[in-house]
Amino acid sequence: MTKSFLAERNAPLPSRVAHLLRQRLRREFAQGGRLPGEHQLAAQFGVSRGTIRQALTILDREGAVTRCHGSGTYANGQVLRIHARAEAAYEFTELIRDSGYRATITPLSVRREAAEEEVAEKLEIPSSSPVLVVRKLFLADARPAIFCKDVLPVALVAEGYEDIELEGQIFEFLQRRCRLDVKHVLASIVPRVAEGELVDLLGSRPGEALLQFDETGYGDDNRPILFSRIFYKDPIIRFTILRTKV
Amino acid sequence: MTKSFLAERNAPLPSRVAHLLRQRLRREFAQGGRLPGEHQLAAQFGVSRGTIRQALTILDREGAVTRCHGSGTYANGQVLRIHARAEAAYEFTELIRDSGYRATITPLSVRREAAEEEVAEKLEIPSSSPVLVVRKLFLADARPAIFCKDVLPVALVAEGYEDIELEGQIFEFLQRRCRLDVKHVLASIVPRVAEGELVDLLGSRPGEALLQFDETGYGDDNRPILFSRIFYKDPIIRFTILRTKV
Repeated sequence: MTKSFLAERNAPLPSRVAHLLRQRLRREFAQGGRLPGEHQLAAQFGVSRGTIRQALTILDREGAVTRCHGSGTYANGQVLRIHARAEAAYEFTELIRDSGYRATITPLSVRREAAEEEVAEKLEIPSSSPVLVVRKLFLADARPAIFCKDVLPVALVAEGYEDIELEGQIFEFLQRRCRLDVKHVLASIVPRVAEGELVDLLGSRPGEALLQFDETGYGDDNRPILFSRIFYKDPIIRFTILRTKV
Repeated sequence: MTKSFLAERNAPLPSRVAHLLRQRLRREFAQGGRLPGEHQLAAQFGVSRGTIRQALTILDREGAVTRCHGSGTYANGQVLRIHARAEAAYEFTELIRDSGYRATITPLSVRREAAEEEVAEKLEIPSSSPVLVVRKLFLADARPAIFCKDVLPVALVAEGYEDIELEGQIFEFLQRRCRLDVKHVLASIVPRVAEGELVDLLGSRPGEALLQFDETGYGDDNRPILFSRIFYKDPIIRFTILRTKV
């Protein structure tokens, strides 16, 4: 089961119920099938029928279930079985495990730098402001799979810290040392050709195609608090996305 | 405003209300701001408060709004302003227009072929079954931007048709001639290097990176009815995706 890095505890009740129900569907309905009725689900989760209805609305929008007027709610096996959904904010180690590999983290560096123009713009801070730059490599069965560079403004760090804390989950660091939760992440999807540092780090052939995500993480008040540039090695990590009515 | 190719008419009421509310938010709340209360919204849309609540749950999950317990619902400008969301099933011409260009379609070919192994597997039909293969090029300001190859099983076509009908929207063709609605699409995101036909068609430099989506469209009964392989020229078309708790 994939764990999200985004805090679930502050989520509204219907989202939390949807989360639990989704986990159960993946376990019990991965091949499809008809769900119990709303009354029964409400009793099982100890919530109101209105809350169950909102949770089912969430799962219906994600494609995890289909609600058929009059005949009930059905699980969509092909959606529930996807292991790397691009819409999901995965921890990289979980993503690697879900893709069928053993996951290892190799911290590369923690540096204090002056923000480059492009990154400063994304973070809505003045150019050259001090930022913490954390570089990590994630291995799948000991082969490089994901290279990630996180950038966060020094001004956000409320408390003293050791560099080694930045080698773990950046989202945990943001919670512990900045008292900030990342609420959502906007990622720009960029196809890239491996060159320079990427060839060395990811063990790619020069000229090979990679997937780059440029991600901005937003806090409770919708202000940017984190910028990450991530490179995924194809086809070790290959995302699937559900495209639907918006 | 971006029009989805997926039929909205069969959608459940909360989805339809969310759709209308989303359009209004893009027009009136693109810079953010506080929404009217649930009572007021319910009255404005002529629906129950439960339906408004479900619609707001949908928009909250998409990141379009944030609901703060006690203080109301707020529009998220940075999400509402995204013009090419990867989660949205756009018509290509709309996608090109939303990206800031004039859109033109160049139909390339309509052929009856034997399904290749890989495609047959996606469509869950026997290998070598007859399929219709439609190739189209979409131009942005007269420059190639999207190359698309749609494959649909001949067995699904219920009525007589002219090849020229396949040069328009494939989803309209599926509705009119196959009596089938695409309910959702699962897309696999693949980084690609331009070579061969792609260089010629998209006017790419050999070795340039492109974004490839391999899409399977599912009908009402969750059976695959359409396979599409789409190449997007970067950065003319660059998708943004909202990554959130799943």
